[in-house]
Amino acid sequence: MTSTTVPRGVYQRLESEEDKAALLHRYDNFLFDCDGVLWSGTSSLPGVASVLQKLRERGKRILFVTNNASKSRRLLLERIQQAGIQAEIDEVFSSAYASALYLKHVLKLPADRKVYVIGMSGLEEELDAVGISHLGGTDATECAPLQGLDFAPLHADGAIDPAVGAVLCGIDTAISYRKLAKAFRYITRPGATNEVKAGEQGGGCHFVCTNEDVTFPTKEGLFPGAGSCWAGLRDASRREPIVVGKPNQPMIDTIFASSDFEKARTIMVGDRLNTDILFGQRGGVDTMLVLTGVNQLDDIAAPDAPAVPTYVLDGLGSLDSVA
Amino acid sequence: MTSTTVPRGVYQRLESEEDKAALLHRYDNFLFDCDGVLWSGTSSLPGVASVLQKLRERGKRILFVTNNASKSRRLLLERIQQAGIQAEIDEVFSSAYASALYLKHVLKLPADRKVYVIGMSGLEEELDAVGISHLGGTDATECAPLQGLDFAPLHADGAIDPAVGAVLCGIDTAISYRKLAKAFRYITRPGATNEVKAGEQGGGCHFVCTNEDVTFPTKEGLFPGAGSCWAGLRDASRREPIVVGKPNQPMIDTIFASSDFEKARTIMVGDRLNTDILFGQRGGVDTMLVLTGVNQLDDIAAPDAPAVPTYVLDGLGSLDSVA
Repeated sequence: MTSTTVPRGVYQRLESEEDKAALLHRYDNFLFDCDGVLWSGTSSLPGVASVLQKLRERGKRILFVTNNASKSRRLLLERIQQAGIQAEIDEVFSSAYASALYLKHVLKLPADRKVYVIGMSGLEEELDAVGISHLGGTDATECAPLQGLDFAPLHADGAIDPAVGAVLCGIDTAISYRKLAKAFRYITRPGATNEVKAGEQGGGCHFVCTNEDVTFPTKEGLFPGAGSCWAGLRDASRREPIVVGKPNQPMIDTIFASSDFEKARTIMVGDRLNTDILFGQRGGVDTMLVLTGVNQLDDIAAPDAPAVPTYVLDGLGSLDSVA
Repeated sequence: MTSTTVPRGVYQRLESEEDKAALLHRYDNFLFDCDGVLWSGTSSLPGVASVLQKLRERGKRILFVTNNASKSRRLLLERIQQAGIQAEIDEVFSSAYASALYLKHVLKLPADRKVYVIGMSGLEEELDAVGISHLGGTDATECAPLQGLDFAPLHADGAIDPAVGAVLCGIDTAISYRKLAKAFRYITRPGATNEVKAGEQGGGCHFVCTNEDVTFPTKEGLFPGAGSCWAGLRDASRREPIVVGKPNQPMIDTIFASSDFEKARTIMVGDRLNTDILFGQRGGVDTMLVLTGVNQLDDIAAPDAPAVPTYVLDGLGSLDSVA
């Protein structure tokens, strides 16, 4: 065993009241992952709502940062409020919302361009919110199966809209071959009408995905996630999409572009090393792992640990006595 | 340029009448890829029908070997006959048929086990032909989209059939989240009822795919192929499927297991190095590349050439004068 001679990254374990109090002094802005931090599946976590309330009273600013692109911010807000946590819609930062902002402000999709969606109403709602027109998505015709080998609906007049400048994919429980095939055409067609960085993207239009999670947790267990909905499209087109959500850079860039948060006074709090902690680290902010979700201390010490947090805390509720 | 000092694999270019005649003496069994060899898209290739007829008259045995799993052998036979080529159903060897044989004879799926299908009627027809019961596939309920985040149909009583011992995936123009999610459950569930080699497959049931082609050629251009229909399932489950079709071993193993062909007297003829020629090479038979399809001489000389054929021939029709 050489674990003592090969030091894994150093983190501070927050156990004393003093250390916990110092944490609260050091940061102004708290980015929270939700499941595993604020609640665990369908169970609440003791003390969390109270801690959040006290942070607010001390003037801390809060964002709820989630990869869940199946729901609109409105519905995610309801979930947060169900946990007894006071929150505003502007504090909810989902990968669906971040994707809409990314298309508008970073890729600067022109106003006359549309987005072809593989995704659900929550994703469409966020595109609507930033004024981007969209096709595909929940449109019943687009969700319908093809009839055997009749490919006619895919190349009929008007099937492919030349105004589409981006394909946006998230989890889609109404995924269809028709949507996959059209998205494939958009991202591979030569001479795409998308003038913005088209060259960088291999000639087709932009190919943006909300998040890369291959599974989606439900109270009935895991089901295929967003990453599983766009994997075939990536393989068929041989194009790597821009993935917005944690642990990728676009989501954190979008957070800082749309807020005046100072990085040095911001901390990302999460339960997963490979998404939350890596995300914060890549974004240049300090991070804190809570042990109420997926990862535990052993995972940080593992040789293949994806990231090492700045701090480790048993659970967010344990700040209640000092907050 | 160092191409003369680094010899790429050696092949024999068949140009003289003598060389062509020798080929016909040397082999008894001819395995033919279809598109690019017997025809090209919707165009016929001159002399091919005549050559096939003459091979037959000389007592040669013929198999048509195709990765197309969207159609049954019956429909593939019709396509061959449309090209003016005489053929029998037993000479058609598709990846769908090979998959059904593989499940039955190699994996020895017990008679009381069923197969969950992501695929089309052609695939179901081949399972029927070997007496394997199946679920999913073209069943209209299974092809229907879910309603938003209502996952109830996926975990209702009876949604998951404990008799399922394998998931079989091919191209599916009626792919649905419901089918992906059920297939995911079957291949990842602990304590699967499949007793055959379950340990080797990570606890879930068998995970078999007809072919790995990520695109599907149609006269209207490329659309997503079989490989794009199962990519998400592979990523979500983190399990590599057994892929039956060219260039993989199961298809050629199945050919030799279901025939009395002598390998030394068998040749695989195709237009693609990365499927047909690699397939023959892996299967231990000689190979011939024809230049009427995808690959040309330059491709054989390329440093990343996936395989080098035994012979190269301009086109199958050029054997007409000697056959």
